[in-house]
Amino acid sequence: MTSQPAKKLLILPGDGIGPEVMQEVRHIIAWLEAKRGLSFAITEDLVGGASLAQYGEPIRDDVIEQARAADAVLFGSVGDPRWNHVGFEKRPELAILKLRQELALFANLRPAKVFDALVDASTLKPDVVRGLDIMIVRETVGGIYFGNPRGIETLADGSKRGINTEVYTTSEIERVARVAFDLARKRSNRVCSVEKCNVMESGLLWKEVVTDLHAREYADVELTHMLADNCAMQLVRNPRQFDVLVTGNLFGDLLSDLASMLTGSLGMLPSATLGAADSAGKCPALYEPIHGSAPDIAGQGIANPIAQILSFAMLLRYSFDYQAEAQLIEEAVAAVLANGLRTADIMSEGKTRVSTSEMGAAIVN
Amino acid sequence: MTSQPAKKLLILPGDGIGPEVMQEVRHIIAWLEAKRGLSFAITEDLVGGASLAQYGEPIRDDVIEQARAADAVLFGSVGDPRWNHVGFEKRPELAILKLRQELALFANLRPAKVFDALVDASTLKPDVVRGLDIMIVRETVGGIYFGNPRGIETLADGSKRGINTEVYTTSEIERVARVAFDLARKRSNRVCSVEKCNVMESGLLWKEVVTDLHAREYADVELTHMLADNCAMQLVRNPRQFDVLVTGNLFGDLLSDLASMLTGSLGMLPSATLGAADSAGKCPALYEPIHGSAPDIAGQGIANPIAQILSFAMLLRYSFDYQAEAQLIEEAVAAVLANGLRTADIMSEGKTRVSTSEMGAAIVN
Ligand SMILES: CC(C)[C@H](C(=O)O)[C@@H](O)C(=O)O
Ligand SMILES: CC(C)[C@H](C(=O)O)[C@@H](O)C(=O)O
Repeated sequence: MTSQPAKKLLILPGDGIGPEVMQEVRHIIAWLEAKRGLSFAITEDLVGGASLAQYGEPIRDDVIEQARAADAVLFGSVGDPRWNHVGFEKRPELAILKLRQELALFANLRPAKVFDALVDASTLKPDVVRGLDIMIVRETVGGIYFGNPRGIETLADGSKRGINTEVYTTSEIERVARVAFDLARKRSNRVCSVEKCNVMESGLLWKEVVTDLHAREYADVELTHMLADNCAMQLVRNPRQFDVLVTGNLFGDLLSDLASMLTGSLGMLPSATLGAADSAGKCPALYEPIHGSAPDIAGQGIANPIAQILSFAMLLRYSFDYQAEAQLIEEAVAAVLANGLRTADIMSEGKTRVSTSEMGAAIVN
Repeated sequence: MTSQPAKKLLILPGDGIGPEVMQEVRHIIAWLEAKRGLSFAITEDLVGGASLAQYGEPIRDDVIEQARAADAVLFGSVGDPRWNHVGFEKRPELAILKLRQELALFANLRPAKVFDALVDASTLKPDVVRGLDIMIVRETVGGIYFGNPRGIETLADGSKRGINTEVYTTSEIERVARVAFDLARKRSNRVCSVEKCNVMESGLLWKEVVTDLHAREYADVELTHMLADNCAMQLVRNPRQFDVLVTGNLFGDLLSDLASMLTGSLGMLPSATLGAADSAGKCPALYEPIHGSAPDIAGQGIANPIAQILSFAMLLRYSFDYQAEAQLIEEAVAAVLANGLRTADIMSEGKTRVSTSEMGAAIVN
């Protein structure tokens, strides 16, 4: 048996419930090292409000370099109301925005999946969401998040003007669309591309580029187009009509949050953000739960660690190719749910309410 | 008794189901003239695909002038897939976009209201949406819909770049926020302002201006702020937490469509888009149903005319000050629903399914 070199993992717990739920991942890592003979070279650092408190900036260049050097990044969450007034250049959110941009993590994969055991957690009728399984592919290094010019300028009369610019190029659209088509081929083979081409030229180009790429390379995949406002409606009206959705940064932000809320259990949903593979085949990747830092419940030991744990399972599967271990973790999660264990956010009558650490421990067992 | 001068009304039925549902408004107008002694000076014209077919453009300057001269505009809907390939400069949607901009109709008021008789039409659980009554105030002449630079440019290597610009100024934000605060005072006195100030400077300015205006003039109204992605989630999780929402053009487009779909009965929801009053107190105003042109069911006589009829009732109330007549119409709609009459879109077991014209006739009776 050849022993593989230890995989380089950077762990960034961040703010709010981030550190608590990350703690449960550490127990799983310890178990994998003890029982499955895996070995990880782990570094850890501060980001977001936690980094602001210590270093006066939301993420240090050094942390970006660590992320670049790692085989994968496991991210918690950032955002802390205590830093609301720190100014646009220092907000905690810059940690994730900079990581995305510096590592060119352009494709955010956000599944919205309803677990059978939790179908009643949704505010939608069970018949509308049972079996729901959507994958949203959101572009994450372009669009209005990063375009120039941007800023706030003061006009002659003392009033102000705020400006942001949405920019998309052919190649930016193509590479993310490719991710969506490739994913669709492993799923139900359907892609719906979402923009506002009736109002925005950037959306018109988006639609053109996706249509051309489809014709050239992915004619076997079913492609449809939808306006973003209609998509927001259709996600509420009949979400199961979708398989893979692909869209820009800003629409993706709203629509993926909307889609994940359809499941009623944000605390269950992992996500991955991927870059392009280099010549050696190494692909930068960051994994994070869909939920935010939830400052209102932080520190109480009641947060659901499952989204963070499933994000780690995704990481094992996609970045480290530890298929068996990823599956073990996913099965453990399913088994614990089947046994009726629930954190507060997914609690329902007749189930057993457990804390963050009890849930984590049950999954390890 | 002094006879009032006839109110000038411009009717623009547009595309798809627009002409069918507008027909039912005409019957109501005839009834009001015959039985209530009102008199309207009505002009009518083509917009959208219908105007493209006849005149080669989505709206003529002459129609814009008619709209300017009118006391109010009653709009149907535009959009027709047959004109999908006509090019960005000729798309049917320009009809409504130009009307908004030329008449400076900056505040789109979009109620999302659940009618008791129709609570089961929602895909959300009845307990989540019963009694829902949200008012979304969407800015409609600024933001990324109209900002410059915009367009698609071809780069040196033959690839393309699509650009749109989001711009908001202090005064644009203030005037629409004022509409929201004024409305809130007549409702539950709560405004939630929505942007992405953690990513966009235009959102940061939005938040600042709303906060300042609130402190200066509306301290009696409860003001909260929410990020647009979180708002999309909260509308699904617990929509009744909201009273009045105020937001920019693009977020308003998605969030108002999402909110109206929570009711499950788009065919019931009217909207108004208002400008600023001139020195004589005349305020430009356009009324339209929230639903689109629904080309898939156009011409079949099955569309629900209620949203168009309630848009006309709103017009009577706000632009013509015919309070009693507006109320008569609203009560007639409620009575017809209570009697169990339903068009196909809101049909449920045990009710009586009727056509567009049967529904219209029942309301007139
Ligand atoms: C934290 C924030 C900047 C971020 C975004 O808007 O992209 C978040 O909402 C997300 O969706 O990952
Ligand atoms: C028809 C279209 C241009 C329009 C918009 O995007 O504003 C519509 O969706 C609306 O909400 O009124």
